[in-house]
This record gives sequence, structure tokens and C-alpha cells, in this order.
Amino acid sequence: MSSRLLEQLIDAFRVLPGVGQKSAQRMAYHVLERERSGGQRLSDALAEAIEKIGHCARCRDFSETEVCATCASGSRDAHLLCAVESPADRLAIEQATGYRGLYFILQGRLSPLDGIGPRELGLDTLATRLAEGEVQELIIATNPTVEGEATAHYLAQLARQHQVRPSRLAHGVPLGGELEYVDRGTLSHAFGSRSEVPQ
Amino acid sequence: MSSRLLEQLIDAFRVLPGVGQKSAQRMAYHVLERERSGGQRLSDALAEAIEKIGHCARCRDFSETEVCATCASGSRDAHLLCAVESPADRLAIEQATGYRGLYFILQGRLSPLDGIGPRELGLDTLATRLAEGEVQELIIATNPTVEGEATAHYLAQLARQHQVRPSRLAHGVPLGGELEYVDRGTLSHAFGSRSEVPQ
Repeated sequence: MSSRLLEQLIDAFRVLPGVGQKSAQRMAYHVLERERSGGQRLSDALAEAIEKIGHCARCRDFSETEVCATCASGSRDAHLLCAVESPADRLAIEQATGYRGLYFILQGRLSPLDGIGPRELGLDTLATRLAEGEVQELIIATNPTVEGEATAHYLAQLARQHQVRPSRLAHGVPLGGELEYVDRGTLSHAFGSRSEVPQ
Repeated sequence: MSSRLLEQLIDAFRVLPGVGQKSAQRMAYHVLERERSGGQRLSDALAEAIEKIGHCARCRDFSETEVCATCASGSRDAHLLCAVESPADRLAIEQATGYRGLYFILQGRLSPLDGIGPRELGLDTLATRLAEGEVQELIIATNPTVEGEATAHYLAQLARQHQVRPSRLAHGVPLGGELEYVDRGTLSHAFGSRSEVPQ
């Protein structure tokens, strides 16, 4: 390698998800050859975001302020609370649905083997919030994986303890999917949860 | 989006090659969730590289110093000069072959429509270098594309003007390739350039 700084930059790019040696090299060369101003912007944005972005005290989402804009907004329905595993999940729901309630971001899922228990997911904060009495329905939108289901089960119990109605996203055949290729578990679930065709 | 800084960071990541909206989101979340120290390192490495990495005055490769380590090294064969399009090509040759000569990095290829002519490729610097009389062979390793071939043709003429022997990388069937799937041009070239099997 011709330059120590270049080597250091390529190495630093590998911290990004899905970026190996070759992509990191390509990124470093691209920035130095054609995008020095964009690279400088990225450097500044990274440093500023890392310094200033923390977690919202209410929903645990990323936020620059003590309480994030969504939680602080008076126009959202405070009776509905949707629990998701990550900020990316929150964003997906926000973009795809017309949901106007609030969110709670777990920042993970229950995984005792990795040392992630209720405390790491901020479930004490969630319990306090449910105890306040304003939330009427807890929409549990964890991923349909083994750990996500276990987390959902735990959250449902927590909700019932505080007289809050727990609900879960519907499972079934994805739109545009073909029955032939849908996995057994999903198909069996979709079959069991069939609904009457409206007139 | 929950945070202006986060939005800005996602946008900044899109400057990287092959990174669209989804990957940029994933990178930003990954850095903020799990890799804040790595992200800080990336920010610093980017800023430092952009500030300090310029071009070597002899070979035009990226370099922190006026003349890069390869050009300054006394242990390389100064009779051989290999012209490549980009620093990545230089690195590929350096890693794959036992070449111990010097390099000249064009930082592009002749492309009149994009306004890239001999001056943009530093061919005046190259001409001066060839005129010095030390170089005996100019190994032309531009890419086998239309523009790369045009550049190679130009470089070969330049070399001959200065009584330097031009050479070109061999074209042919790639190792591990199957004849059936090799494109016509390559196959015809490989057939025409066949060599006698040594005893």
C-alpha cells in the first residue's frame, strides 16, 4: 500500500456493515478521487451524529433532544403504543402504515444467552409508562423470530399486568407471494387465521 | 425521520459508491447502535486522509509526501515503468505479480467527450519522464476497454517518440475460465496469439 493514511482509511471503512476489504478499498479510492467534499461532509456528519445523538427518554429512539419529536408531538394518539426492536423497524412502520400512535424502541430482543434481559431492553421504563394509565393498547411489533416471539410473549404479559390490551401484527401470506413457495409455518398460520370475505 | 442529524448522516453515506438509501440507513443505524468508536475512527480517518493525501509528483499515485514511497525507494528497477489507469489497478498488479519496476498512474483514460485529454492524464509529466532516458520499457496496463485501448495506442506512440519500448499485457483466456463461455473477441485474440508448448 502506498500510504499509511490510505491504509488507515480503508481499515476504518470496514467498520460499516457489509463492507469487506474490496469494498472498503473502492470507497476510499472513490472518495479521494472524486468525492473529497462529499467525504468531508460524511466525516463531519459522523462526528456530529456520534457526539449529539442519544436516546429519547420516553421511547428510546435515537434523538438529539431529551425527548424526541414524535414523543413531544401533541398530534399523536397517546392511547396507542407500538413496541419495535429497532429504529429501522420504527421507520419501516412509519413509512408503510398510517399509524399515528407512539412508539417504544426496545433496541434489541430478549436473548438471555447474550446477556440481554428485560433491563437491557428498558422494560422498566416501559412498565412505568404502562402504569401511567394513558396507554390502552400495546401493539407488539417484534420480529417473527424465536427471540422476537419470546420478547412478544413477555411484553404481552407485562401489558396485561397493567390492564393494557396487547396486540400482535398479523401473520400470513405476504402480498404478491405464491402459496406454493410460502413456508409451512406461515401457511398453517394463515390458514388458521382465515377471515370471512366481506360482501 | 426522528432526527435531523440522523437524516443528514444517512444522506452523507450515500456519497459512497454502491450505497443507496437502504444501505445508508443500515450503516447509520449500525454505527449509532453498535460502533460509535469505530464511527469516530472513520470520521477522523476520512478528515485526515482528505486533508493530507495528495498526488505523488513522480507517479501521480495517492501520497502523503511530495514523492511516494515506491518512487523514492532505491530498490525498484527504474528501467521499467508501468502505466495504469487508477491506484486500484496499481495495487492489483503489485499484489498479484512480482513486478519490481515503477508505476505511472494516469488517474483516468483518454475520453475526449468527457473532456479528458492528454493533459488531464498528466501525459506531459510522463513525456518528461520518458525523455530523461532512464526508462527502457513502458508496460501499458490500461483496461481492455475501447477507451483503455485508445489510451494504450496513444501511450505506445509517446513511448516510441522517446525511444522507449512499449509493451502491453497479454490478452487471452483467463485461468479457470471455460472456452465455451469466453467471449468471441477474447477467444479470437487467444487463438491468434497461441504459443508453442515448451518441451
